[in-house]
Amino acid sequence: MKIDEISNLLHGGDYNPDQWLEYPEILDDDIELMKEAGVNVVTLGVFSWSSLEPEEGVFTFEWLDNIMDRLYENGIYVILSTPSAARPPWLAKKYPEIMRGNFMDGQRMPFGGRENHCESSEIWREKVRIIDEKLAQHYSHHPALIMWHLSNEMHGLCFCENCAVNFRKWLKNKYGTIDELNKQYWTAFWSRRFTGFDEINPPVRFGERQLHGQVIDYMRFYSDLHIDFLEAEKEIVKKYNPDIPVTTNMFMQHHTVKINYHKMAKSLDITSYDSYPMWHLGKDKTSEWKTAVWASMRFDFMRALKSKPFYLMESVPSAPNHFEFCKLKRPKMHMLSSMLAVSSGADSIQYFQWRKSLGATEKFHGAVIDHDGSSDTRVFRDVREVGAKLKEMSYLKGQKSKADVAVIFDWENMIALFEQQNLRKDKELFDKIPRAHYEAILKNYVNIDVIGVDSDFSGYKVISAPMLYMFKDGVADKIRRFVENGGSFVLTHYSGLVNENDLCFHGTRRNPAFAPHGLNDVFGLRVNEIDALCDDEFNEISYEDKTFKAINFCELTENLGAKTLARYEHDFYAGLDAATENEYGGGKAYYLACNTDDDFLYEFYKHVIDHSGIPRIVDSGYVKDIMVKERAGRKFIMNFSTEKRRIGVDGEMIELEGYEYVIIESSLKKSYQEGKI
Amino acid sequence: MKIDEISNLLHGGDYNPDQWLEYPEILDDDIELMKEAGVNVVTLGVFSWSSLEPEEGVFTFEWLDNIMDRLYENGIYVILSTPSAARPPWLAKKYPEIMRGNFMDGQRMPFGGRENHCESSEIWREKVRIIDEKLAQHYSHHPALIMWHLSNEMHGLCFCENCAVNFRKWLKNKYGTIDELNKQYWTAFWSRRFTGFDEINPPVRFGERQLHGQVIDYMRFYSDLHIDFLEAEKEIVKKYNPDIPVTTNMFMQHHTVKINYHKMAKSLDITSYDSYPMWHLGKDKTSEWKTAVWASMRFDFMRALKSKPFYLMESVPSAPNHFEFCKLKRPKMHMLSSMLAVSSGADSIQYFQWRKSLGATEKFHGAVIDHDGSSDTRVFRDVREVGAKLKEMSYLKGQKSKADVAVIFDWENMIALFEQQNLRKDKELFDKIPRAHYEAILKNYVNIDVIGVDSDFSGYKVISAPMLYMFKDGVADKIRRFVENGGSFVLTHYSGLVNENDLCFHGTRRNPAFAPHGLNDVFGLRVNEIDALCDDEFNEISYEDKTFKAINFCELTENLGAKTLARYEHDFYAGLDAATENEYGGGKAYYLACNTDDDFLYEFYKHVIDHSGIPRIVDSGYVKDIMVKERAGRKFIMNFSTEKRRIGVDGEMIELEGYEYVIIESSLKKSYQEGKI
Amino acid sequence: MKIDEISNLLHGGDYNPDQWLEYPEILDDDIELMKEAGVNVVTLGVFSWSSLEPEEGVFTFEWLDNIMDRLYENGIYVILSTPSAARPPWLAKKYPEIMRGNFMDGQRMPFGGRENHCESSEIWREKVRIIDEKLAQHYSHHPALIMWHLSNEMHGLCFCENCAVNFRKWLKNKYGTIDELNKQYWTAFWSRRFTGFDEINPPVRFGERQLHGQVIDYMRFYSDLHIDFLEAEKEIVKKYNPDIPVTTNMFMQHHTVKINYHKMAKSLDITSYDSYPMWHLGKDKTSEWKTAVWASMRFDFMRALKSKPFYLMESVPSAPNHFEFCKLKRPKMHMLSSMLAVSSGADSIQYFQWRKSLGATEKFHGAVIDHDGSSDTRVFRDVREVGAKLKEMSYLKGQKSKADVAVIFDWENMIALFEQQNLRKDKELFDKIPRAHYEAILKNYVNIDVIGVDSDFSGYKVISAPMLYMFKDGVADKIRRFVENGGSFVLTHYSGLVNENDLCFHGTRRNPAFAPHGLNDVFGLRVNEIDALCDDEFNEISYEDKTFKAINFCELTENLGAKTLARYEHDFYAGLDAATENEYGGGKAYYLACNTDDDFLYEFYKHVIDHSGIPRIVDSGYVKDIMVKERAGRKFIMNFSTEKRRIGVDGEMIELEGYEYVIIESSLKKSYQEGKI
Repeated sequence: MKIDEISNLLHGGDYNPDQWLEYPEILDDDIELMKEAGVNVVTLGVFSWSSLEPEEGVFTFEWLDNIMDRLYENGIYVILSTPSAARPPWLAKKYPEIMRGNFMDGQRMPFGGRENHCESSEIWREKVRIIDEKLAQHYSHHPALIMWHLSNEMHGLCFCENCAVNFRKWLKNKYGTIDELNKQYWTAFWSRRFTGFDEINPPVRFGERQLHGQVIDYMRFYSDLHIDFLEAEKEIVKKYNPDIPVTTNMFMQHHTVKINYHKMAKSLDITSYDSYPMWHLGKDKTSEWKTAVWASMRFDFMRALKSKPFYLMESVPSAPNHFEFCKLKRPKMHMLSSMLAVSSGADSIQYFQWRKSLGATEKFHGAVIDHDGSSDTRVFRDVREVGAKLKEMSYLKGQKSKADVAVIFDWENMIALFEQQNLRKDKELFDKIPRAHYEAILKNYVNIDVIGVDSDFSGYKVISAPMLYMFKDGVADKIRRFVENGGSFVLTHYSGLVNENDLCFHGTRRNPAFAPHGLNDVFGLRVNEIDALCDDEFNEISYEDKTFKAINFCELTENLGAKTLARYEHDFYAGLDAATENEYGGGKAYYLACNTDDDFLYEFYKHVIDHSGIPRIVDSGYVKDIMVKERAGRKFIMNFSTEKRRIGVDGEMIELEGYEYVIIESSLKKSYQEGKI
Repeated sequence: MKIDEISNLLHGGDYNPDQWLEYPEILDDDIELMKEAGVNVVTLGVFSWSSLEPEEGVFTFEWLDNIMDRLYENGIYVILSTPSAARPPWLAKKYPEIMRGNFMDGQRMPFGGRENHCESSEIWREKVRIIDEKLAQHYSHHPALIMWHLSNEMHGLCFCENCAVNFRKWLKNKYGTIDELNKQYWTAFWSRRFTGFDEINPPVRFGERQLHGQVIDYMRFYSDLHIDFLEAEKEIVKKYNPDIPVTTNMFMQHHTVKINYHKMAKSLDITSYDSYPMWHLGKDKTSEWKTAVWASMRFDFMRALKSKPFYLMESVPSAPNHFEFCKLKRPKMHMLSSMLAVSSGADSIQYFQWRKSLGATEKFHGAVIDHDGSSDTRVFRDVREVGAKLKEMSYLKGQKSKADVAVIFDWENMIALFEQQNLRKDKELFDKIPRAHYEAILKNYVNIDVIGVDSDFSGYKVISAPMLYMFKDGVADKIRRFVENGGSFVLTHYSGLVNENDLCFHGTRRNPAFAPHGLNDVFGLRVNEIDALCDDEFNEISYEDKTFKAINFCELTENLGAKTLARYEHDFYAGLDAATENEYGGGKAYYLACNTDDDFLYEFYKHVIDHSGIPRIVDSGYVKDIMVKERAGRKFIMNFSTEKRRIGVDGEMIELEGYEYVIIESSLKKSYQEGKI
Repeated sequence: MKIDEISNLLHGGDYNPDQWLEYPEILDDDIELMKEAGVNVVTLGVFSWSSLEPEEGVFTFEWLDNIMDRLYENGIYVILSTPSAARPPWLAKKYPEIMRGNFMDGQRMPFGGRENHCESSEIWREKVRIIDEKLAQHYSHHPALIMWHLSNEMHGLCFCENCAVNFRKWLKNKYGTIDELNKQYWTAFWSRRFTGFDEINPPVRFGERQLHGQVIDYMRFYSDLHIDFLEAEKEIVKKYNPDIPVTTNMFMQHHTVKINYHKMAKSLDITSYDSYPMWHLGKDKTSEWKTAVWASMRFDFMRALKSKPFYLMESVPSAPNHFEFCKLKRPKMHMLSSMLAVSSGADSIQYFQWRKSLGATEKFHGAVIDHDGSSDTRVFRDVREVGAKLKEMSYLKGQKSKADVAVIFDWENMIALFEQQNLRKDKELFDKIPRAHYEAILKNYVNIDVIGVDSDFSGYKVISAPMLYMFKDGVADKIRRFVENGGSFVLTHYSGLVNENDLCFHGTRRNPAFAPHGLNDVFGLRVNEIDALCDDEFNEISYEDKTFKAINFCELTENLGAKTLARYEHDFYAGLDAATENEYGGGKAYYLACNTDDDFLYEFYKHVIDHSGIPRIVDSGYVKDIMVKERAGRKFIMNFSTEKRRIGVDGEMIELEGYEYVIIESSLKKSYQEGKI
C-alpha cells in the first residue's frame, strides 16, 4: 500500500516485539489489542540491530518476517526503521572508533547509550550500509511496508580526531582560504590567526570554545554530517523500491536541536516529530494553555518544514518518565492533545511505545499497554477512544492548513544566539521570546507557519522575526522586498547584529552602521545602544492609554521617521521609541525595541493583524485558554482550561467544559475539498 | 582481657599518637587526661601505615609497643586497627595500580585521599596481607588488645580494567549464561544484547549507566569485593588469636552506603558505627527531634544487624568540620546524644578523635582535646561528665533491646530506587519516606528494629516496608506467610514493581499482573497507575473525620476487598482508596497508596499498633520532642526540645527541662536480669 | 618621552589596530577620534603575536612601525605589550607542551584561550624570549614608547608533569628536608608521610587536595613561577633601554587572584589594574555605594602596593559583556567612576578597548567606538568629557594620597582561608567580611591603604586585620610592637589560628595556647570556642544602648583583662564579650569576636578612629551613598546615589545631584605642592 493512498489518519506507535520474542502470549495479545485500539500502523525495528545481526555477518530476520506477515494479515501497516540509532555491543567492542569523542577533550568514549556514533567513521558507515541493504533487499516490497524510518532522533556531536579531519575539509570547502576564515572568525583577537586548516580542532571544553564563528560552524558541519549520513541510508533503501517514502523522527524538547531541520527536511519525503509537552507541570494547574502553545509552535514548525502534513511519530498516552515530575495525563487530555496535533497538520497519532519495556532506561515511560498487560486500564480506554475518533476524521488525511502569518524560528540564528557571549546570560530567553511572539499571534486566532529565514516569504501577509540576531547574506534584502511588496514585517531588539559567521556588521565615522543592519530606512529608526535589565527590573511602555512592562532587553532607539507606537516611560531613555511602525513601499515595517509582557505583545499583534487584512478563524478576541486552529476548512476550538469556557464562533456562543474541544465546519471547507486552497 | 568480660560500657576514641611522637609532653598529657575523662578504651592504628612501615619492608613498631604498654599500665584497653584505609605515598608511587579508576572513564587516579584503593589489585592485597600479618604476629596477645578494627569506613567504587575483569567473572557466576543476563537486563532495549561477558564494562559516566540492572549489579559486585577484602584481613588477624573479635566502622551519613551492611555484618563479630547527626542545624532551633530521629534510626539499624549491642566507634563531642555550618554542640546535648546511643544499644561512646590534628583535612573537626591543649574547656568537661555517667551504667553492658516492630530499610532496594529512572527525580525522597515511617512508629513509643528484607521476620508483630520497590525472589511469599501467621504488615506505594535485577513484573491480557506483585489477595487491592505530584501540589485524604495531606506519589488503587481506611478527596481519582487494611490468614495487611504528611502517618501507625497488641514503653500519646526507648528494662525518656516538657510515665507526670533525660526502671528490668528476655 | 615627565594624567586604552589592518578608513578614523576624545596614550600589542610572527621565525613589524609612527606624530604615547598572553596556533601545534595540564588529572590541554601557558615549559620561555627580544631591539627607543606592558592579566595554574618537577624543586628549596615538610603538612594524618620529594604531585582534582599546606604551597609555587616568568620578560626589555618602565595589568574580579600581588609588585616599576565593577547590578537600583566600595577597596590596594599612583589600565566606558546582566552605564556614571579611580590614586583612565572587535569572545564588550563606527554616540561623548576633565587635573599627576588607616587583605591569608575545610562552607564570606570592615572605615571619611601582612606597619595609626587566620612567623610580634608603639590594632574572630603552612598552633595542658596566637596579653582575652551560625540565625550584641546583629561566626571569649565594648545577648554564651578594647603599651588592641551587621562595624570604627586622633577628610558623619577621598590636598566628594544628597564640608553645606561629584581644595593642598606630604 502506498502511504498516500491510505484514506485514514494513522494510529499506532513504536512496536518492539524483539523484546518479547520469548513471550508468545504477549505477541498474541498485541495483535488483538492493536485491533481493538484502532491501530493501523506500527513502527518496527528501531533499535533492533542486535536482534537482526546478533553476530557480525549473521542475519536473523525470521522473527521480523513473522511479525510483519501477521501485522499485514491483521490490517496493520508497518513503518520499518533502519537500526542505526544504536549498535550491538559486539560492534563497538570490535570497532571502538564508531563511538564518539567526548566534549571535554575529544577522547573516545566507551560503549553505551544510543544516537552516539561518530558519523565520520568509515567503518560505522559501512556496517550501517550492510545492515540497511539487507533490510531493504528483504522488505522493500513487503505489502505491509508503507515507509522507511531512517535511524532515530538523530542529534549530538562527536569531537574525535576523525571528525577533526572532516571538519577541516568542510571549512576548506566553505572558506577556500585560511585568510578568509581568519577574517570571518576575527582571529586577530587573542592572537588566534591560523596559518593552515590543520591547526583547527573541534571545539572541546578543554580547548577553544570562544571563537563563536568556529563553534557554530562545527554545529553546521555536524548537522551536515548527520544529513549526509541520512542521505546515505536513504540511497540504500530507495535503491530497492523508490516508491517507499522515507522519514526520520525529529524532536525539539530542548531549546535547540543540534541539526538544521530546515536543511534535513529536504532529504525526507515526509517529516515526523516526537512530541513530549510537559502537561500538568506548570504552576497554574487549572490551565494547560502555555504548554499547549509550546506544543502547537513545534507542530506548526513541523508542518511548515515541507508545507504539508507531518507524522506525529512519538507521543505518550500518559506520563513519560524523563520529567522532574511524571504526572499522569488527566482525563480528556489525551484526546485534547491528540486533537491539537491533528488540527495542526498531523496525519498520525503514534506512541512511544506500544508496550512498556520491562527493564532499562525507559521501563516506566508511559505506553499503551502497561506492565500489567491488561486492557482494563484508563490509558488503554483513552487510546482506543482516540483511535475511534481518528477513524471519523479521514477527511483530514493529507490536508494541510493555510497560514497567512509566519514566525521565523531559524536554526542558525538560534545556535548563534546560544553560543555567543550575550548581554544577558539566561539563554532560556532565546527560546522564550520567540515563543511569546508566537503565542501573541496565536491568541489572535489565525493560523501560523513557523519557518526559517531561508523559507519562501512570498505566501505570507505578516512575518514576525523575534530576535533575528543573524542576518545571513541576502536576509536584509529579503525583508526589504517583502515589505516593499506589501507585507507586514515585525522585527525586534537584538536583530541584524551579525553575519552568518557571528561577525558583527560595522561602519565608519562617515558611514556609520546601526542596527538593524541595512534596514534603517525600512524601519525608520536606528538602534544606538542595548540595555540589559536585571531579572528584578522592568521599564514601562505606554500604548493606547495603557501601560505595559518592558523587560530583559531595552534598546535605545533613534527615530528616523517611523510612527511611534509606544514609548519608554522611565529611566534615562524615557521618551525614546519602544515600538514603531513604518510605511515602506506597499507594506509596513514594525520594530519592537524591547521585550515586553504578554499583554503588550497581544495588543501589538492585534494591531498588526488588524491592519494586514488577515481574517481571524473565529471572530472573537482571545478567550483565556481557548486555542483555535483551522485545518482543511474545519475549525478546531480547544479548551485548555480545567474550567468551563465560552467563545463566540460564527455568531453563536459555544460552551466547552474543561479540556473539551469542538470541530466546526467552516465556509472554507468546500474550497479545500475542491482543491482551491 | 576479653571484650565481653569488661563489665563497663566503653568510653574513648580514636587515638593517633603517631601524629605526636615528636611531642612527648603531649603524650604524657594524653594519658593523664584520658584517665580524668573516664576513658577506658582507645582505637590505635587507623591510618598508621606510614608510621608502621615508613619504607617498603622496614617495620617500625617501637612507638606502638610503647604506647600500648603505657595504655595498658594505665588501665586503658586498645582496639587496634589494620592500616588498610590509607597507604603511604611510596606504595602508591611504586604500584600505581593500587589506586582506583575514576567514574568518568575508568582511568587510574593519582595518589591522594583515603579509602580509595582498587580492591581488585593483587599487589594491594598482598601488601595489606604483609602489614596485617606483621601486626597480628606482634600484637595478637598483647594484654591491652580487646578488638581488631579492620580498615576504616570502607566504601566507594573503582572502575578500572582489573575490576572490569573481576566484574565479568562475578556476572558469569551469577547468571551462568549471557542469555540469562540479557533477559534480566532487558538488553533488547536499545540494541544492547551482549554476545559475551567480555563485552560488559564497569558503568562509567562516559559509557553506560542506563542498564539499571547492570549498575546495581556493579554495586553488588563491589560490595562483595569489599567484604571479600574484609574477610581476607579477618583471616590474617584471626590466625594468630581467634579469640580477639573483629569489627569495622560503618557509616550512613548519606542516603545510601556503597556496601550491603546486612551482608557485611556476617563477617564481623561486633558491629561498629560512626554517628554524625546534624545537631542544631534544622530550621526549628528549639527542637532537635528530627535529627534525633535520624540518629535513632541508624542506631536501631546497627543494633538489629546482629541483634546485639553495637559500638559507637566514632562521634564528635562538639562540632565536626564537614557540615555546611559547623555549630557547637549546645550544653547538655553531648550527654543527651550519648544517652540516645546507649538507649539504642550502644556499648560504647567513642570519639573521632581524642586530640585535634594540627594540619590537613580534619584539623578543625571537634575532638576531646582541642589545639589549645587545655582541660579547662567546656568540651572536656562534657566528655568527662559522660565518662562518669557511663561508669554508673554498667548494668547495660552487653544487654540488647527487644523490639516488636521492624522497619525494612534494605540496601538492595535502596540502591535500585536510587539508580532507576524514577517518576520523580528528587532522590532524597527515598531516604526521607522510610524515615518518616520510622518516625511515626517511634512516636508511638515502641522499640523498633531497622532490618533488611532478608532478615528474620519471625520475631516481630508489626513490620513496615516503605517503598519496597524490589521484590527479590521469595519476598512476596515471605510477606504472605508473615501475615498468614498473624503479623501486621504495612506496604506502601511504589512497592513490588521489580525483581532483584530491576526487571519489572508483568502480566498478560488474560492474566494481568498488578502491583504489589503477587500480593493482590493479601492486601485486597491492586494498583492501576502511579501519579507523581509536583512539589507545590498535594491531594488530601480523609481519615476518621480529619483531613491529611497526600504528597509526592499517589497511586490509583482498585479495591479488591480491603477495608478502606482513607480515601482521596480531590482530583480525578477522588474516592479511590488511599489507605486500606485487609485481614488475611491470622494477620493484617495494610497498604498506603500515597506518601502523606507526618500527622497521618502517626495516626495510621497508632491504629496499626493499637490493633497489634504491642505494649507501649510509656502509656502516653506522643509528646512533642520527647523520645522514649527501652533497653534492658530501663526506660529512657529524652527531651529533644530546648524547652520544658511533661510526659506521663507509669502513672506519674515527669517534667524534663530542655535537653534533659531521665532513666526509669521498668517492671521488665528483672526479666532482663534473669535473662528471660 | 619618559612617563614621569608627562605632565598630564593619561587617557586612552588598549588599541588593537592589527584587527583592522584591512580597513584603512577605520585606522584613519581612529587617530582622528582619539584626538577628539583627548586620548594621549594607547596600549599596543596585547595579543599581537600572530600578527608579529605569523610563521615561526618570520617577523612582520611593519604594520606596528607604521601605527607607532602615526600615533607619535599625533601626540599619542604608546605602552607596548609583550605578546605572551596568547600564542599563535602554529606555536601550540608544533609544541603542545606549552599548553597547560588540566586540573582534573593534569593531562595536557589542546590549543585555545589565553593566559593559559605552562610557565615551566622551556620551549615556551624560549619562544617568548625571542619575540620579546625582537620587539625590544626594534622599539626600545621609539619616541612614542613610554612603558612596557608585560604579558596580560597573568593568572591560573598548570598541573602538568613539567610543573610537578619544578614544584618538587621549589618544595626542596623551601623545606630542605622531607621530614620538615611532613611535619608542616601534618602528613601523619591519613598516612601520607612522604619519603621523598618525588612522591609529591600537583594537587589535581582526581588526586590530593586535602593536604591544605600542599595546596597553598602549590599556589605559592605557581605565583612565584608567574613572577619568575615576568622577571624574565622584564630582563629582556630592560636590556635594550633600562629607562622604560615595566608594568603588567593586575585584576581582582574574583575573591582571590592566583598571584601574590604584593610580591609581584616588587618586579614592576608601576602597577596597573583592570577594574570592572558591577555598576547598576545591585538590588537597590538607587544606590551604587556598595559597588563603589568594592571598586574603591581594590584601588586602595593597587595604590598601596608600591605606595604610589597606579595606572587604571583597563576599564569599560559602558557595559562589559561578561556579567550576568550587562547594563549600560547610566549618565554621569562614567565620569563619576573615573573620578573615583583618580581620587584613589590612578594616574590614568584607560579602556579595554578602543574599538569593539567584530568577532570572538568580547565582541559585545563595551568600547569607546562601537561597531557602528560613529562618534555621535552617548559613550563617545562620555569618554570625550572624561578626557577633557582629565586635562584639567594635571595637578594630580604622580601625586599619591596619604592614609593613616590600613586594612590588611593578604594574599597568603586569603588563599589559606579559601582552601581549608572551614567551619562554614560559604567561601564568599572571606571576601565579604574584609570588605565590610573596609567599608565601615571608609564611612568614617578617612583615606585607607589596603595592605599585606608583610607591608610596613609603621606609617599607620590604625590597622584593621579582619579574619587574619594565618600568622606567619613574626606576625604576632609585629602586631605586638605596633600596639606597643602607640598604634590601634583591630583583630577579629578566626584570627591567629595557623602558621604559614596552615598548621594550627597548639599548647599543652600546663601551657595551653588560645587564639589569637601569642597575643592573649595584647588583646586581654582568649578564644575558647568558635560557633558557626546558620544563614538564618543571628545573635545580638549590645553596644552603647543599641543592639546589633552578630552573624556567621561567634567566638566564645574569655576576658583576661580587656575592657568590654559589646556583649552577646543570647544563646548559652550570652554575657561573653563580643568586642573588646585593651590598652597595651602605648596603643590599643581591639578584638571583634563575631561578624556583625554593617551598622555595628560603622559605630565600632567610629569609636576606634575617634580615639586614634586621626582627622576626618570631612567633618561629618557618614551621609548615605556619599564617598569621600583625598588626594594631593583635594577632597573628592562623590554621590553614588541616584538622588540628591547634602553633606557638610569645611563648615559649608554641599548639595550634590544624583551621580555628581565635587572636588574641593583643602588646606593640605599647599603641603602637597611643597612636597611636605
